[in-house]
Formats: sequence, C-alpha cells, structure tokens
Amino acid sequence: MNVYLPLSAALAIQSTNLTSVSHQVTLAERHRRNGHGNGILWFTGLSGAGKSTLAMALEQHLFHRGYQVFVLDGDNVRQGLCADLGFSPTDRTENIRRVGEAAALFARAGALVITAFISPYRTDRERVRQIAPNLFHEVYINADLAACENRDPKGLYKKARAGQIPDFTGISAPYERPLAAELVVPTARQSVEASLAVLLDYVGTTFALTAN
Amino acid sequence: MNVYLPLSAALAIQSTNLTSVSHQVTLAERHRRNGHGNGILWFTGLSGAGKSTLAMALEQHLFHRGYQVFVLDGDNVRQGLCADLGFSPTDRTENIRRVGEAAALFARAGALVITAFISPYRTDRERVRQIAPNLFHEVYINADLAACENRDPKGLYKKARAGQIPDFTGISAPYERPLAAELVVPTARQSVEASLAVLLDYVGTTFALTAN
Repeated sequence: MNVYLPLSAALAIQSTNLTSVSHQVTLAERHRRNGHGNGILWFTGLSGAGKSTLAMALEQHLFHRGYQVFVLDGDNVRQGLCADLGFSPTDRTENIRRVGEAAALFARAGALVITAFISPYRTDRERVRQIAPNLFHEVYINADLAACENRDPKGLYKKARAGQIPDFTGISAPYERPLAAELVVPTARQSVEASLAVLLDYVGTTFALTAN
Repeated sequence: MNVYLPLSAALAIQSTNLTSVSHQVTLAERHRRNGHGNGILWFTGLSGAGKSTLAMALEQHLFHRGYQVFVLDGDNVRQGLCADLGFSPTDRTENIRRVGEAAALFARAGALVITAFISPYRTDRERVRQIAPNLFHEVYINADLAACENRDPKGLYKKARAGQIPDFTGISAPYERPLAAELVVPTARQSVEASLAVLLDYVGTTFALTAN
C-alpha cells in the first residue's frame, strides 16, 4: 500500500486539537481530476422565472460533459438542512446563509454547485458572496413580474394578488434585482434552450482550467 | 447542441411551483461516472482518538484511487454552516443534525463523504442515520479514554480534569459508544497505517459498484 500520509500528519494523531488537521488533497488536484474549476452558480429571480428548470437542465448537460455538478434547491434543502426554518424574514435570511455555506462546501470539494432559490434580498446574496468571494457567481434568471404573473399556471400570483398568500415575492414582498450579476439570463424573451446555451457558454468559459 | 431536456421539464418553466422540478441526473449515472457507490462514513470517537487524522488520510488515499471524496469536520463546518451554534447540548445536537444533512447532500451528489466529529450522543447519531438510512455507515474510531488521556499533548484532558474545561467529553460529559457500528477501528492498539488499511478495505468492499 502506498502511504501518502506525511510524518507531521501521522504524528497529529497524538493531538487532541484534531480540528487543526488539514485536508491533504489540494484544490488544484481536484481541478485536474475533474477537468474543470470549482464554484457556485447562484441563481436568483422571481417565482416562475425558470430557476429550477434551468438549474436541472444545466446540471444534466454539464454532467454529460463530464462535470462534477449538483443542484441545491428547495426540494433537497427545505426538507432537510433547513427543515427547522419557516418563511419569516429572519428564517429566510438564515435559509440563504445555510445554502450559501453548504454550496461553499461543495465548491471546496471541487464541484460546480448550482443553487436555485428566489433569494430576494440583496444583502442576503452579498453575504453569501462574502462566504466565498472567488467562487460566487450571481446569475440573474430575469423574467419580469408581468411575464411570471402571466404564466402563473398554478395560480399563485393570482392568490397573492387576492391577498391569500402573504409575503409573496414580487407582489407583497420585495424582490431586489441584482445590480452587478456575473450573468443575466433573460428567460422571458427566449426559449429554455436559448437560455441553456447562454449558461453552458458561461460555464465553459469561466470554469475551464485554462481560465483559472 | 444536444438537448437532454425532456418536453415535460421544458414545460415546467411555466410552473410557479418550481420546487417540483426533479434532478435529471440519476444516482446510477453518478455511480457509473465516479466508479463507486455513494455514502456517509460517520466517524465517532473521543477527542484524541484520531478521527480527523484518519479522515484526512483516508480522503487522500481514496482521492488517489479515483474516488469523489470529501471530509466534513470542525474546521470547515464550525466556522461556516454551524457558526451560529455554541457547545450547549442543544447546539451540539443541532450541529450534528446539520452535518448529517450536509453529508446526505454530498452523498446524494454521488460522493463518499467522511465526517469527523466526536458526536458523543447515540440519539444524535441515530437521528443522522434516519436522514439517510441506506447511506449511513457508523465508524467507531475506538481509543479508550486512558489512551486518549495518556496522549493529551495539548493538555486538554489535564485541564478538563482540573475543571477548567466544562462539559469535556469523556471527563465531565458522556461519550456513548456505538452499540452496532458498521466498522470499529481500534486506534489505541494499532498504527495509523494499520487503521487506514482497515478503512480502505471497508470502503473497497462496501462502495464497490458490484456491491450495490
């Protein structure tokens, strides 16, 4: 058996301050293995703008191109990591913080992680950026309220207008659009395929190893 | 461009209930890509037993064997995802819960994730097992108190004995040893290399694709 453990690490087993033991696999090694850079694609936008659909489609395409990629969204976070949180402003902020921290862990493991949350508050998104400034890419999935409300197949916007859903982003709660997103995807004016092509182009350019 | 998006998903962009959009990459596809099964190796044991040292060494060896592998430990969790938590019993329980949920996300992304936390309470560990029953492997890093206390290079056990550190596991707070761990690694009685060999053997057997 080839033993990679350096003497310093082998000796560390005698330390009770074991949290000081460092990862022995570098990010550069993970890049070389995966063939791409790491990072967080943080999708933000109104309900109905297409965040989850595009996130899942992007994940699938990138996976088939060989990427280590994973989507964090309401489905796999709200019932698990954030199951203790509701939808009050404080809880929403904490939800976004935890998603940001979890995303940063995935990125540090070498992955490209895509998050799909409305994340309506600018300060919340900026806080996530500060967690991992070099890894964070804000992607504005931009369909205006009229377009999202016009789709409204489940009638959520209609209910919100009727006052039946409190604090509904865009109607009775604010959506603070990004001021300087790394990428804007205008989903109201183009097809899913066209939006996907924009995203794939961005990833191909930004996370290529030569670009790091 | 090859478009993998099925019509049903393309249409889902018109849905406001976007959390219902499913992952389009199956776990079986991730297994085939990575060449190994997914799961959580949950290291538990006393302070000084060697959890972090063995976790980092195992990560390194598995990485060099081609595994997608990552360690969650106090270093990358306590200052991030769980930065809002202290060390009260309630906070410790919540810390372990979140680590369990984060680990489950990594496992669902196809990775082998190793966690290195004392996690002294049986109920906390069992709760994590319930998050992902088929993915959870409890690994008891077993060095008895005498061995850990005898090492004590930082003098933490000495301080704990002197009452200077409250709620120190093994001294002034309980450690509930696993009753039916999937693997026991007796680190007091063998070298780091020997313990590592046991772990590598377990992983090779348990997470081989043919074993799934």
